[in-house]
Amino acid sequence: MLPGVGVFGTGSTARMLVPLLQAEGFQVHALWGQSEEEAGGLARELGIPFSTSRSDDVLLHPDVHLVCIYIPPPMTRQIAVNALGIGKNVVCEKAATAVDSFKMVTAARYYPQLLSIVGNTLRFLPAFVAMRRRLLEGYVGEVQVCDVRVCGPSLLDRAYGWTCEELMGGGGLHTVGSTVIDLLSHLLGSRAQRVHGLLRTFLTQSASICGIRRVTSDDFCFFQMLMGEAGPGAGPGAGSGGVCCTVTLNFNMPGAFTQEVMVVGSAGRLVARGTQLYGERHGGGGEELLLGDGGRAGPADPLLPHLRGLGSMVTALRHSFQAHGERRSWAREPVAAAPSFEDGLYVQTVVEAVKRSSRSGEWECVEVMTQEPDPNHNLCEGLQRNKN
Amino acid sequence: MLPGVGVFGTGSTARMLVPLLQAEGFQVHALWGQSEEEAGGLARELGIPFSTSRSDDVLLHPDVHLVCIYIPPPMTRQIAVNALGIGKNVVCEKAATAVDSFKMVTAARYYPQLLSIVGNTLRFLPAFVAMRRRLLEGYVGEVQVCDVRVCGPSLLDRAYGWTCEELMGGGGLHTVGSTVIDLLSHLLGSRAQRVHGLLRTFLTQSASICGIRRVTSDDFCFFQMLMGEAGPGAGPGAGSGGVCCTVTLNFNMPGAFTQEVMVVGSAGRLVARGTQLYGERHGGGGEELLLGDGGRAGPADPLLPHLRGLGSMVTALRHSFQAHGERRSWAREPVAAAPSFEDGLYVQTVVEAVKRSSRSGEWECVEVMTQEPDPNHNLCEGLQRNKN
Repeated sequence: MLPGVGVFGTGSTARMLVPLLQAEGFQVHALWGQSEEEAGGLARELGIPFSTSRSDDVLLHPDVHLVCIYIPPPMTRQIAVNALGIGKNVVCEKAATAVDSFKMVTAARYYPQLLSIVGNTLRFLPAFVAMRRRLLEGYVGEVQVCDVRVCGPSLLDRAYGWTCEELMGGGGLHTVGSTVIDLLSHLLGSRAQRVHGLLRTFLTQSASICGIRRVTSDDFCFFQMLMGEAGPGAGPGAGSGGVCCTVTLNFNMPGAFTQEVMVVGSAGRLVARGTQLYGERHGGGGEELLLGDGGRAGPADPLLPHLRGLGSMVTALRHSFQAHGERRSWAREPVAAAPSFEDGLYVQTVVEAVKRSSRSGEWECVEVMTQEPDPNHNLCEGLQRNKN
Repeated sequence: MLPGVGVFGTGSTARMLVPLLQAEGFQVHALWGQSEEEAGGLARELGIPFSTSRSDDVLLHPDVHLVCIYIPPPMTRQIAVNALGIGKNVVCEKAATAVDSFKMVTAARYYPQLLSIVGNTLRFLPAFVAMRRRLLEGYVGEVQVCDVRVCGPSLLDRAYGWTCEELMGGGGLHTVGSTVIDLLSHLLGSRAQRVHGLLRTFLTQSASICGIRRVTSDDFCFFQMLMGEAGPGAGPGAGSGGVCCTVTLNFNMPGAFTQEVMVVGSAGRLVARGTQLYGERHGGGGEELLLGDGGRAGPADPLLPHLRGLGSMVTALRHSFQAHGERRSWAREPVAAAPSFEDGLYVQTVVEAVKRSSRSGEWECVEVMTQEPDPNHNLCEGLQRNKN
């Protein structure tokens, strides 16, 4: 039997998620929004019986056993940790900082019987499921290089808000880059050892964001990751094995969102463009379509990959909860592909290393936190940084 | 009246160049090849009356007043400098090192009445001529980011030779990257201040390159250039203005060569794909074709951009020499778009800075040589590098 669901958030993802949950047979009992009006309006629209702006009303709702959290990053940690603390299963978006992610990992470790996954939908997109299988089968041979490009118009909300603020988890790197970092570690089965990056904010003000307000979050981000290298002593240019990933994120582009993920190896290459997968092997007869998107014509919906992946994730959640008869019990296997909170911490660590590299101009090591930093030490660092 | 031409080289470029010269009315009087047989064979094929493997026989040929040099990079400097020294006009390919380029600059400065240009054909490609015009007209607004990608199969010759050797000017960075560096400085009207790069050689041996022989030239190269920045004290991540260029060169790809050059600005973007130019502006009606390639169907010839650019360059040369009636006299204006030897030195300086960055892992400054380095000092550096 499927657990009742409580949803946090009234943004575009929450709006897409609720119908998908309902279509798979989940009952959505409660919706939380930042204001009563926002929550009430969307709840009526989506047929959710209860809405509120007080988080505890959702968390303590007797019919809610699965909590889906799609809210601004700075608020995610608190809701996720509280939900686990009172025995609810959690699917959530990334947090704002590595420290927040670490606290979520600690909570998830403390309640291993509860489901806790980061809702990165790219892993579930059929094109990437197929790409991962082909990689394991050796389609491209030994992987050498990955190249990812995501381009599109501005990610900023019209009004000033968290999307404008680097420290609140706004910007292309945090919003889109983090899903790419997660995807690449999933596809390649290895993690970034060192990163190098460059962030820019080209659009610092707009018609609606003006006066003393300035955008601090990046709208252009380029970074490189060296994955699973051999020796720690080798220079970055040394041919020391290890896969080199380059990621370009540009949100100053007119036109539709485009997303291209390419993996090049010794025997050929695989490319996912939007929701389609293509491949070409050395000595083969040119590029072949390995996975179409059901033959729909016309320009692809920019949100299609996201929506498609979200749908597959919800299906996996249904399988997981249906595997056993009980309302609160779930099977690990159907959601094995989903990123754990540990994966979320890794991703956040890479994001922060890229930001550090953009400031220092140097390659930065990716060192995943193993204990919570002293908050006073943090304060000092913050002050230091402000001084510079 | 057009000057008689002597051509150095029997490779693919020389093979394309001779018919283009002949079509524009230039008489090709002499051809040089590394062996008498090679030179003789190609001369017969292309209808050139004289062939030799001794460079002086071409340089001193009484009917030759323009020398075109398309030979392996380590040999270019000597021929180019000698040709200028005996009063011949010179069109040549890049040299192997910045020191060689500097010597060529010195010679060109010494004989300013002689034509001396680097035959980078991309500047002459109609798509880039149109792109440059659109940039000057403000089509994209303030330029923010350039992104260049060139992909294709291996650049190595089948047999072991200079293409395999980094120090002889082999590799994607030197062969293709240098034309991209030149093109971007031409399009943007500014030069790289700092660069960061990563080079890799994934294919170190092949069926025909084996035993003790190994490829040292790069087959994957990624680099970033910060162009014309404001303050020297600003960190690379600082939003200090300046255009950020990213260049990806991957020659491990099955299939045809692809080349894409994109310039993104505050008002829109321009993209040259192969020989075609597209553009899109914010708030416009989607991407528009700004310059087609004459509507030819089917997959584009991978060498088409190169061939098309070479053709335009030869036409410019004809205009330059026809401007005055005399055989040796030429006008600057028709070839004003062509890279000078000074531009060649700049390009070679960037190439070497990228290589240095790949070894050091750090951002490297681009400092164009102003005097010839002490050869003994050079030797010491070479020894030092071997030791590491």
